[in-house]
Amino acid sequence: MNTFGHLFKITTCGESHGGAVAVIIDGCPPGLAISREEIQRQCDRRRPGQSALTTPRQERDQVHILSGIFDGHTMGTPILLLAHNEDMRPGDYEVLKNVYRPSHADFSYQQKYGRRDFRGSGRASARETWARVAAGAIAQKYLQEHLHIEVMSYVEQVGTLRTTIDPKSVLASSIESNPVRCPDPLMFPLMHNLIECVKQEGDSIGGIIQGVLRNVPVGLGAPVFDKLSADLGKAMLGINAVKGFEIGSGFEGATWRGSEHNDSFIMRDGNISCATNHAGGILGGISTGEDILFRVAFKPVSTIAKEQQTLTLEKEKVALSVQGRHDPCVVPRAVPIVDAMAALVLMDHYLLHKAQNL
Amino acid sequence: MNTFGHLFKITTCGESHGGAVAVIIDGCPPGLAISREEIQRQCDRRRPGQSALTTPRQERDQVHILSGIFDGHTMGTPILLLAHNEDMRPGDYEVLKNVYRPSHADFSYQQKYGRRDFRGSGRASARETWARVAAGAIAQKYLQEHLHIEVMSYVEQVGTLRTTIDPKSVLASSIESNPVRCPDPLMFPLMHNLIECVKQEGDSIGGIIQGVLRNVPVGLGAPVFDKLSADLGKAMLGINAVKGFEIGSGFEGATWRGSEHNDSFIMRDGNISCATNHAGGILGGISTGEDILFRVAFKPVSTIAKEQQTLTLEKEKVALSVQGRHDPCVVPRAVPIVDAMAALVLMDHYLLHKAQNL
Amino acid sequence: MNTFGHLFKITTCGESHGGAVAVIIDGCPPGLAISREEIQRQCDRRRPGQSALTTPRQERDQVHILSGIFDGHTMGTPILLLAHNEDMRPGDYEVLKNVYRPSHADFSYQQKYGRRDFRGSGRASARETWARVAAGAIAQKYLQEHLHIEVMSYVEQVGTLRTTIDPKSVLASSIESNPVRCPDPLMFPLMHNLIECVKQEGDSIGGIIQGVLRNVPVGLGAPVFDKLSADLGKAMLGINAVKGFEIGSGFEGATWRGSEHNDSFIMRDGNISCATNHAGGILGGISTGEDILFRVAFKPVSTIAKEQQTLTLEKEKVALSVQGRHDPCVVPRAVPIVDAMAALVLMDHYLLHKAQNL
Amino acid sequence: MNTFGHLFKITTCGESHGGAVAVIIDGCPPGLAISREEIQRQCDRRRPGQSALTTPRQERDQVHILSGIFDGHTMGTPILLLAHNEDMRPGDYEVLKNVYRPSHADFSYQQKYGRRDFRGSGRASARETWARVAAGAIAQKYLQEHLHIEVMSYVEQVGTLRTTIDPKSVLASSIESNPVRCPDPLMFPLMHNLIECVKQEGDSIGGIIQGVLRNVPVGLGAPVFDKLSADLGKAMLGINAVKGFEIGSGFEGATWRGSEHNDSFIMRDGNISCATNHAGGILGGISTGEDILFRVAFKPVSTIAKEQQTLTLEKEKVALSVQGRHDPCVVPRAVPIVDAMAALVLMDHYLLHKAQNL
Repeated sequence: MNTFGHLFKITTCGESHGGAVAVIIDGCPPGLAISREEIQRQCDRRRPGQSALTTPRQERDQVHILSGIFDGHTMGTPILLLAHNEDMRPGDYEVLKNVYRPSHADFSYQQKYGRRDFRGSGRASARETWARVAAGAIAQKYLQEHLHIEVMSYVEQVGTLRTTIDPKSVLASSIESNPVRCPDPLMFPLMHNLIECVKQEGDSIGGIIQGVLRNVPVGLGAPVFDKLSADLGKAMLGINAVKGFEIGSGFEGATWRGSEHNDSFIMRDGNISCATNHAGGILGGISTGEDILFRVAFKPVSTIAKEQQTLTLEKEKVALSVQGRHDPCVVPRAVPIVDAMAALVLMDHYLLHKAQNL
Repeated sequence: MNTFGHLFKITTCGESHGGAVAVIIDGCPPGLAISREEIQRQCDRRRPGQSALTTPRQERDQVHILSGIFDGHTMGTPILLLAHNEDMRPGDYEVLKNVYRPSHADFSYQQKYGRRDFRGSGRASARETWARVAAGAIAQKYLQEHLHIEVMSYVEQVGTLRTTIDPKSVLASSIESNPVRCPDPLMFPLMHNLIECVKQEGDSIGGIIQGVLRNVPVGLGAPVFDKLSADLGKAMLGINAVKGFEIGSGFEGATWRGSEHNDSFIMRDGNISCATNHAGGILGGISTGEDILFRVAFKPVSTIAKEQQTLTLEKEKVALSVQGRHDPCVVPRAVPIVDAMAALVLMDHYLLHKAQNL
Repeated sequence: MNTFGHLFKITTCGESHGGAVAVIIDGCPPGLAISREEIQRQCDRRRPGQSALTTPRQERDQVHILSGIFDGHTMGTPILLLAHNEDMRPGDYEVLKNVYRPSHADFSYQQKYGRRDFRGSGRASARETWARVAAGAIAQKYLQEHLHIEVMSYVEQVGTLRTTIDPKSVLASSIESNPVRCPDPLMFPLMHNLIECVKQEGDSIGGIIQGVLRNVPVGLGAPVFDKLSADLGKAMLGINAVKGFEIGSGFEGATWRGSEHNDSFIMRDGNISCATNHAGGILGGISTGEDILFRVAFKPVSTIAKEQQTLTLEKEKVALSVQGRHDPCVVPRAVPIVDAMAALVLMDHYLLHKAQNL
Repeated sequence: MNTFGHLFKITTCGESHGGAVAVIIDGCPPGLAISREEIQRQCDRRRPGQSALTTPRQERDQVHILSGIFDGHTMGTPILLLAHNEDMRPGDYEVLKNVYRPSHADFSYQQKYGRRDFRGSGRASARETWARVAAGAIAQKYLQEHLHIEVMSYVEQVGTLRTTIDPKSVLASSIESNPVRCPDPLMFPLMHNLIECVKQEGDSIGGIIQGVLRNVPVGLGAPVFDKLSADLGKAMLGINAVKGFEIGSGFEGATWRGSEHNDSFIMRDGNISCATNHAGGILGGISTGEDILFRVAFKPVSTIAKEQQTLTLEKEKVALSVQGRHDPCVVPRAVPIVDAMAALVLMDHYLLHKAQNL
């Protein structure tokens, strides 16, 4: 249950506390040039403490490559990437030892396994996503080098503040130009302010990330269970705090007529193309060559400083206020996670397509 | 790519044209009492031609049990369920032989495989969902008998017409009381009219299905990639025409504060329970024991009678009007498919949980 | 547990009694020309009643293609092959209803599932192998057409009668020239006589099949768990009655020195080749380009006419004599099953290799 | 391709050179008490340099537990075990940089991936088996504690020297009493001498390991592809240098009559049992409750000091003599690897059986 993918397959491990988080990447084609720095760069994008908007926890999360890469190239053998756990202050968690945090995995987790590591959130910790980002960096490098695919995502909404910028026009550089990771120069300062307010209130707030995948070749995906859209959806819904996923027209599209929604086929630059892209780049579960466009909804982080009512493990009522070091809004740091998961899905489907059809 | 599930595993096959659609169900516990009629009953709910709101195609879709069930009980061996294809009028499809239908899988499918069965939509046909419903009937029976789980879903929205009925109060019988499969007695006639109007215009319209899973035991799911919410999402996004999935508060939840969104733990009937259920019954990917609530958005059916512009396989412009036999709105017939996929996910996660933790 | 393979994946179902045996082949590349007759030809090689040496049960085992093949070519979609069960005489099995046959799966099967279909052997029946042979025929066609791989096997030993013919020199036609499927013109009549004697005594006898895979490209397999030799071994040990598998020098090789056993690399026709082939065509789990040579040991069939002591389900002693219709020696009919399983393994590993390395 | 198992699933990584070898164990039930020392003890049994019979390479192979175990118990989350690589003397391998060792994976590996880590054997190195033994230690602990299963194996044959000791009577302690790991007090000194002679000659020699699994409950396994015997076979054939596997009567059984080979069912201590155990504890792929008995044939190690003819990467003839630090006979150190793989197979099949049938 800790493996993702069929042919480009990652298996992750590690809790918020304990020795390390790590990932084994199995099935990577040999001969891909990749450096430790390229992987570190993606990991740094999700690193806690990177800006005033994130948790002040300091984790350098230095990538160690322990197998599968030699002389700067992948070998075709399993790649082990590992980051040691640092800045663990179990004292921070003492208050949580005997209590179920509202809307947190503490309760369901304890019920499932009959035990949990009260020092943190075990595998429910966002720390687990380090492994995804590290693995995703390799997938992104391959997709870029071999298929010229561009994988990107950005913050579209924080609370009710939403940018209406056209995904088609967004540049990767503009996403990274501010700590919110919103490419809209008018909107990001407002979002920034909102997150800071919420933080000062000891509260948290949700948001939405828009994903954009460009130059995806026609033919990736499958017509039934493993639709490219279904696998992207599973990838995103498997990220902590995600409550919704939509592709192309999404929930809005459910209100339309077919005659409005259908994307006419037209010729563009000598190729069959779509006049509009309500489909979001996927028809019948298979990529069309148009931009793949999807949106991911994140709920507000459940661990907050504001006082809340909850129960102890002994079923006693208790008031809880977590003075911890948590993100007031998860979406800025979730952008590289969305990128990573999207890249992993594309990479896996590319290899599946290659095996059967190329 | 035609298998779904890990332990309760279904493998499906069959195109809209050709001999049959079928499913092998592998991993079903032995000793479950199940009759052909119980399976047929679910299949009849998705059958074309069941009301004026659906395609007039007549397919009896009689279930044949060819292995794995003996003396009225499952044997622990793989179960083969099969329905022969009937009422095939290839003539209906002659017009489509040389053309890509807008927003249909024709194009992406042809590009992927280099060929397609122009007599229909191959595996992109909704006919493929028969196999899911047949297999789902067995999962539903097991969940009901052994775990008292109630799996249901209903039409919440058609176009912009939406019922605000509380999912908690909905009864299975009220869903089946009308051909729209909307349990709201005030809203379903309006939806019915809307679908008939759209049909007469030669157009189609989208909609939203609400899923409700009751009495799901605490502990099903997994904390990372295979979150119960992620697997439900993948299951739903793998259904034809689905463009969005949300669980609990969903996209709406992204606009809230943590202090509003968090579900406080309280005691109810001696058990730890949640005061509210914004989580939708799943925390950290694991079921909490609360009702699991999710919503699935369907785009309007792409094959319509209204004239549209498109291209032929030879990249020539052509006007297309499909006088076929297609559903004007897919959601009423999609309800049993949503039920089936939800039951398959729960059944699989129950067995996974049993293997590791029970 | 009824699926074999990762990318070229077969899922089988069907018991000796019940409606049908069937197989879904998933992952087959599109565009392979294959006819019903080509599949039937392989199935006829395993058909009961084909000679005086086999069970007199008459099963035509006519192949029905119900999906995935259109216009004589594979479509890239799952292929359903099915044979209806015929010539079922449940009366034959009445005597077995309440008894555990010695060395038969009756006992372990009943203990595992808590129930069994006493009309036959359920999934433990050799009838299940029909599905493997039918699926294997498609793999064999692909391997032959696209990679010029020759898959063959033959009876090397019946009881203690063994041919010392060199596997390198064997032709497919000489294998099919006699009902024993032994290509040695001096040995097959002796084997034939031995099997007939054993049959008249109401007994059975074991044997060994030699497999030969020619023109397998260098590079198929994997270095660790999924060694090509390990997957061939699993494939063969998964056939009913198989008790042993060896590759290359096998058990004999365990007695040698390294200096004797090592195959020197030499140049042959401009290619790196091996002076000897004690490795049996696989080094470190990966094919070398030399012939792949393996041997499969089959125990004598357990169901015999000779009287044996056993127990009833109520743990009472009973003498058993099964006047059934069983093969006195399983190896002649097992040859096409060995071929099929070998082809399935090669096909799967070819696609895996293609996905990652080609 | 570096994952083994379905529910108790291990994924391994690491080459002979590079940072570390490691394994992630996924699916382990929570609450199993296990210490670092228990795992280390098994690893020490396979450690190089443990006796004069093994390679003098010194690798302490200290086990690091980096996730999944807290407070001395498994947590139900993935367990990461890791050993850093030490005593790497790349100089030793300089001679091998440009040459294909006879009967070694160098050649097939290079052809498959287009590159290899010439400093060692990459994933073809026996070092990879550390991860199996470490993971197997956890499976063994569970099987022992929860099911009272005893997993053991011993050296039965070195070259042509064979003990005829009855597997039923062997004690684990007598296996560990000598560096050959042969429990026969008369035979092990002869084997010891033989291995030392071979070593002095700069040669190597093969051998056979007998496996014994006691108290395996009835019902583990599956009737078709995933027979318990097939999965044990795959597990063993996936170990380096293994060329053959047999269960129960094995190749010998192929020469018998059914009336001789069949194991009569009898009552023993109130339970249905077998008078003989030619089946080796498995009927129809499912365990019978009798001892599971199997044999594994290992070829002689290919890397030897004696001069051999081979080719360089540039296809030039060259004489090779590897003054390395290699085992003259692999079987004494392979015993814990066989134990580990057997335990992993049983553990996985136990969880599969529990999921479906218990």
